[in-house]
Amino acid sequence: MCEANAYLIREEELELIMEAVDVIEPDEEGLKLTSIFGEQRFIKGHIHSLSLIDRKIYLRETPED
Amino acid sequence: MCEANAYLIREEELELIMEAVDVIEPDEEGLKLTSIFGEQRFIKGHIHSLSLIDRKIYLRETPED
Repeated sequence: MCEANAYLIREEELELIMEAVDVIEPDEEGLKLTSIFGEQRFIKGHIHSLSLIDRKIYLRETPED
Repeated sequence: MCEANAYLIREEELELIMEAVDVIEPDEEGLKLTSIFGEQRFIKGHIHSLSLIDRKIYLRETPED
């Protein structure tokens, strides 16, 4: 299985927001994350980078206006 | 090993642009892709979506001005 963990890049740290992510796809205002367990989460942001051998996905939030 | 294949989303089809991708990170004008073999490729675009169990990364090119 090749799921990965999704982290939000904060100013000083990384915040783990979902483990075992399978699918990330665009949603109305950002991204919809779905884990291998069917759990879903919505993030207003974009995919910043990937490191798949480390099983890491890095996301960055869209700044609020 | 959890590398994935990277595809560019074209109007009518998907174009496989790199197999066995490990890392994708922002580069000056877009993205730098690095495979598990150390091969590198630069794409002017962004990460559109992921389907990791299927080992697929979907990229979209930035339209030329």
